[in-house]
Amino acid sequence: MIGGGAGAFIGQVHRQAAALAGGIDLVAGAFSRDPASNEETGSACGLAPQRVYPGWQALLESESQLDAQQRINLLAIVTPNHLHAPITAAALRAGIHVFCEKPAALSSTETRDLAQLLGTVDARYGLAHTYQGYPMVWQARHMVAAGEIGRVRKLYVEYPQGWLSDDLAGQGNKQATWRGDPQLAGQGGCIGDIGTHAFSLAEFVSGQRIERLCAHLGTHVAGRVLDDDCSMLFLTDQGASGVLLASQVCAGEENALTIRIYGDKGGLEWRQEEPNSLIHRPLDQPMRVLRAGANHSWLCDEALQRIRLPAGHPEGYLEAMANLYSDFAQAITGSPSAAAALPGIETGMRGMAFIEAALASHASEAKWTALASSEGAQR
Amino acid sequence: MIGGGAGAFIGQVHRQAAALAGGIDLVAGAFSRDPASNEETGSACGLAPQRVYPGWQALLESESQLDAQQRINLLAIVTPNHLHAPITAAALRAGIHVFCEKPAALSSTETRDLAQLLGTVDARYGLAHTYQGYPMVWQARHMVAAGEIGRVRKLYVEYPQGWLSDDLAGQGNKQATWRGDPQLAGQGGCIGDIGTHAFSLAEFVSGQRIERLCAHLGTHVAGRVLDDDCSMLFLTDQGASGVLLASQVCAGEENALTIRIYGDKGGLEWRQEEPNSLIHRPLDQPMRVLRAGANHSWLCDEALQRIRLPAGHPEGYLEAMANLYSDFAQAITGSPSAAAALPGIETGMRGMAFIEAALASHASEAKWTALASSEGAQR
Amino acid sequence: MIGGGAGAFIGQVHRQAAALAGGIDLVAGAFSRDPASNEETGSACGLAPQRVYPGWQALLESESQLDAQQRINLLAIVTPNHLHAPITAAALRAGIHVFCEKPAALSSTETRDLAQLLGTVDARYGLAHTYQGYPMVWQARHMVAAGEIGRVRKLYVEYPQGWLSDDLAGQGNKQATWRGDPQLAGQGGCIGDIGTHAFSLAEFVSGQRIERLCAHLGTHVAGRVLDDDCSMLFLTDQGASGVLLASQVCAGEENALTIRIYGDKGGLEWRQEEPNSLIHRPLDQPMRVLRAGANHSWLCDEALQRIRLPAGHPEGYLEAMANLYSDFAQAITGSPSAAAALPGIETGMRGMAFIEAALASHASEAKWTALASSEGAQR
Amino acid sequence: MIGGGAGAFIGQVHRQAAALAGGIDLVAGAFSRDPASNEETGSACGLAPQRVYPGWQALLESESQLDAQQRINLLAIVTPNHLHAPITAAALRAGIHVFCEKPAALSSTETRDLAQLLGTVDARYGLAHTYQGYPMVWQARHMVAAGEIGRVRKLYVEYPQGWLSDDLAGQGNKQATWRGDPQLAGQGGCIGDIGTHAFSLAEFVSGQRIERLCAHLGTHVAGRVLDDDCSMLFLTDQGASGVLLASQVCAGEENALTIRIYGDKGGLEWRQEEPNSLIHRPLDQPMRVLRAGANHSWLCDEALQRIRLPAGHPEGYLEAMANLYSDFAQAITGSPSAAAALPGIETGMRGMAFIEAALASHASEAKWTALASSEGAQR
Repeated sequence: MIGGGAGAFIGQVHRQAAALAGGIDLVAGAFSRDPASNEETGSACGLAPQRVYPGWQALLESESQLDAQQRINLLAIVTPNHLHAPITAAALRAGIHVFCEKPAALSSTETRDLAQLLGTVDARYGLAHTYQGYPMVWQARHMVAAGEIGRVRKLYVEYPQGWLSDDLAGQGNKQATWRGDPQLAGQGGCIGDIGTHAFSLAEFVSGQRIERLCAHLGTHVAGRVLDDDCSMLFLTDQGASGVLLASQVCAGEENALTIRIYGDKGGLEWRQEEPNSLIHRPLDQPMRVLRAGANHSWLCDEALQRIRLPAGHPEGYLEAMANLYSDFAQAITGSPSAAAALPGIETGMRGMAFIEAALASHASEAKWTALASSEGAQR
Repeated sequence: MIGGGAGAFIGQVHRQAAALAGGIDLVAGAFSRDPASNEETGSACGLAPQRVYPGWQALLESESQLDAQQRINLLAIVTPNHLHAPITAAALRAGIHVFCEKPAALSSTETRDLAQLLGTVDARYGLAHTYQGYPMVWQARHMVAAGEIGRVRKLYVEYPQGWLSDDLAGQGNKQATWRGDPQLAGQGGCIGDIGTHAFSLAEFVSGQRIERLCAHLGTHVAGRVLDDDCSMLFLTDQGASGVLLASQVCAGEENALTIRIYGDKGGLEWRQEEPNSLIHRPLDQPMRVLRAGANHSWLCDEALQRIRLPAGHPEGYLEAMANLYSDFAQAITGSPSAAAALPGIETGMRGMAFIEAALASHASEAKWTALASSEGAQR
Repeated sequence: MIGGGAGAFIGQVHRQAAALAGGIDLVAGAFSRDPASNEETGSACGLAPQRVYPGWQALLESESQLDAQQRINLLAIVTPNHLHAPITAAALRAGIHVFCEKPAALSSTETRDLAQLLGTVDARYGLAHTYQGYPMVWQARHMVAAGEIGRVRKLYVEYPQGWLSDDLAGQGNKQATWRGDPQLAGQGGCIGDIGTHAFSLAEFVSGQRIERLCAHLGTHVAGRVLDDDCSMLFLTDQGASGVLLASQVCAGEENALTIRIYGDKGGLEWRQEEPNSLIHRPLDQPMRVLRAGANHSWLCDEALQRIRLPAGHPEGYLEAMANLYSDFAQAITGSPSAAAALPGIETGMRGMAFIEAALASHASEAKWTALASSEGAQR
Repeated sequence: MIGGGAGAFIGQVHRQAAALAGGIDLVAGAFSRDPASNEETGSACGLAPQRVYPGWQALLESESQLDAQQRINLLAIVTPNHLHAPITAAALRAGIHVFCEKPAALSSTETRDLAQLLGTVDARYGLAHTYQGYPMVWQARHMVAAGEIGRVRKLYVEYPQGWLSDDLAGQGNKQATWRGDPQLAGQGGCIGDIGTHAFSLAEFVSGQRIERLCAHLGTHVAGRVLDDDCSMLFLTDQGASGVLLASQVCAGEENALTIRIYGDKGGLEWRQEEPNSLIHRPLDQPMRVLRAGANHSWLCDEALQRIRLPAGHPEGYLEAMANLYSDFAQAITGSPSAAAALPGIETGMRGMAFIEAALASHASEAKWTALASSEGAQR
């Protein structure tokens, strides 16, 4: 693991998720440029001291020289955004599989370079779009694909948070600080941090591609450079339209990612804060609530494979991330279905196209801005 | 009452709401152009047969000739939209107070004419924006005005319905038929029918005026002429921004009008389908749920005046409409606060400006379209 | 109307519900023994001064001497409990239909006397078990009777309130004062005031009769004489068992009457505070939420007849009470189905048997106490 | 680990929870008497084949002979109930810490023997009352202890499940089969399986001891021997009263453990199926919803220590169990506060006293049955 020292959020998440997934041992790390923090995290994780490295280059260099049996074969990258691409490239070149926090890189160009590199190496790549690990998200995707809501007309996806309502960066909050620095986070603030989650979820569940959008971004706190809020209209390649909003200044909101999708035969609604329920509103019938449960035979296989417990035993965010790790572990060992399930470089390219289109749209007087197209399918 | 014969929806609502409000007797009506339906409704309402008129002109003409004691002094207009303005004008000229279903008229021009007429007659005018009769909407408005959520940054208002997912008009549904005919409904379909409710609610709760918007409209059912769906970004006169969506093709949705408003100190959320709760999320404190209840001393006066029952005895849509009737009855008898509380011609002008701007924006390549300004305050 | 002066709760409810029901005019009343309050209420209700009577005897005496066309033909009794039986008896003897707040009387003996009297007079009797006016309660009853949840095994019914957590009577609250006085309220406090609502709802929805119970009552506030809290186990005549609890010291609770009923094929849940939803949990299928809506063709006739508005336009407590008034008005004019639907003296006798059994059980060391049986069916 | 082979439920839970807790490695096991299943599970868990033992005796014997560094120092017991006591005793005597699924044993006598043994060995004992690992349960307990709801008056705790509505044992369901066999499960069916969870939660949150109860049990499925349903009234040592119900025939219910507790200053409500929210209803103030979140400074320390993620990132059942494992791991390494937090043999003795009192009460004609007292405090 690279990144994830004291004060980091997502590093802990990855470590716990990997433990929960099973079959993955954390054996080496470069957690922080601060030697004390680095050592402390390494020790807390039970690593051998010689495998707690001062930096990512040292880690890759040393590990590459170990026996194939001994050295890491999977690298989790949980650093601030600007390091994602260079570390990914170096690891892939060393033949090490990479599981990277989103975004894949800081720009479409960087991401495309990674995609090209991936075509030339014998290593797999996964992108941590956690919300695609939730079973009921898979259930929603399945129902849409199976035509249970008919032809899709409307997509509403939103991701309101409130934690940046105040100037946390000014108060020294580590999470807020790097996310607010374009050198570290990239050109998108909220649009990159959580807007991409909403975007990817919309494409994932609908099976459609957002082609054009009209965005308005905002920056609401004095001293903040990047956007902390965005709203947009969009049109898809299959004739649906919708709204996406993401904000980090919705005071009091926690992490209320929500998707609603309506077709001519019904609608679906999923809320991340109550992730074990999927609301299905069939046209002209009573609404139903599909609940996650390993014993619920009416759920689709993709959902059931991602549920650990009988209904009524709530699973959450770590379990969703653990599902991505499981998929990745299986993908590495050769399962094509697990590989297909995992968000990868295509998702990364879509996300960068989205961020860049949103920024361009915000700066434009024209109503619609097209997303750069990439060739492959969404994943 | 004019309009509201068999098969109509809102006529029944007005009659029940007026009965609930008390102090208002239905004594005359022209409910339908179909004589049988007209008679039947009149008889069901217990009217004297001679006061069940074949049309609105006959009603106004005959009633005007009755004694001041006997004749109607308040006219409720619940016809399809195209008749709102002509009947309103005729009644006002006859010195009869008018309580009219929204919209006030079919265009800004017609509405402005009514506004001017109102300046010259001795009669009051009220517009049935039902949702402004809900106590917890008043509570939300009060809290925003009192600064309890700080400076407003974001406004999200939505109104998803699903009842026009199919071609109901083609199936003979009376409600769907006239709403789909531009001659009867005006140029806006969904944008006029429910978009204006969402718009008015946003302005009412926030105390801000929407100045510019960027709209995308849709028509999803073959044979339908008017829009059945709209989404827009908007900017207010006080620097807030937001999203408004209204749709009648969100299959399975009922009447899910919802407003969320966020300031730098907290947020509020109100859902029409659970109207007795107002969620308050103060920044950096636990969320609170304010519940309607005549015994809840912590609510504002405007809310308490509109609550009939102790907490836990749910009130609903008819009670909200009855609150408008109560306000109107009191406004007629000279209460300035009731008059101030009632949505009137200014609300009507704002609504028409909104519809026309949304239609113009949809047709435009430019991102932002300004709303025509009117002079007075919102009401 | 007798009772319901200033400071009363249920009188206002009855007046508004009757207005909402339509076809019922309030023309005479004796609202309060306090002449000023009596006059004020009469005037506020728009009564002719000569028909605002100083007491119930005066009302009945004077009205009886009026023409059949003019005099009241329906009397609503909304006094404290001790007057229910004497006024009912006198009105029935005068040939006036009676719609009475619950309880029917202060004892089983008094209630049985009323039942016998009813067999001898040409007047109808209704008992205001408001919760039986809710459409989704009828839907639940229908589904149980139709076997949709199979053979009933468990019944849980609860009615927590919190408004008597403090000594409101000591603080001069009129509602709390008479309810705490055995001379006025009867021997049951909470058990009589709201326990009977829970009991009647359980019998109404299940179609079963509670035969034996085991009760524990409590009185939690210094100076209070009657119980303010009760819990009990019970067994029904058809082999189901269950729990009933009612309390007025559940601090912070509003009016959270809830029933859950489980059979061998599924379960149902209805909550009064969200009365427009009925949760249905079929065994081994996803849960469903049945929502009230005049347009929801899948609801049973009894429910649809009691719904005024399309789905998503919430109806509440006043509408439920208005449904009872509508049933009563129709019962008077000869509708057998409306008469059958209305809670009447049999419900009153069941309620008294329940209160008396609960009090006896609380005083007993034995586990089970039988309810006195009455002959007829529940209603 | 002993128990937890293919088809078992709780073994998987323990393994995942221990992994999530961190610092605990699964190195040896006897998962099933079926050699194939045993081997398969061992291999899936990555164990060395020589440490996958054919039975618990073999495991204890062999492990005891290993170096202190190598051998297991913590044993998780997840077998059917009848083996809990003998394995526990043997492991404790071998100086191995034991973390055991509930119940501690099959009877009070057996449990007391374990308690005495514990006084003589140098090994710790924990009992897997998972629900006591939830942060918001700790928050509730803290608020009660801190007097935030005043003097406790009422306790309602319920645990409805529906999974035994049919004869699953007859259909070969492994979980249902052993739970229905008194030789394996003990004398209590539902009362032992989930009734004890409800009971322990009530005592844990309230800080009170249930002294007397009045229980009614039921068995609803042909061929079933043990109870599948129970309801009871109870009284506590500090003057509160309440209701406990647990059932496995509430068709359609999942795992709806819920506790509500009311004092003279307010009430609390927690639902296991939405475990990240705690509803607080202060008397005469708006209700509040306390949400789990590592960033919610207003939560108590005991809650914050058990929360991994920022608010809005849901945690669930595995996280709760992992919290118990963390406490146990810390207790082993000498943390007194972690040891104090962990449910142990006292909780086990309370649970057995509860089961035995409930069974005795059900068989008795008397209203109240006392719980056998044990000497120490609850834990």
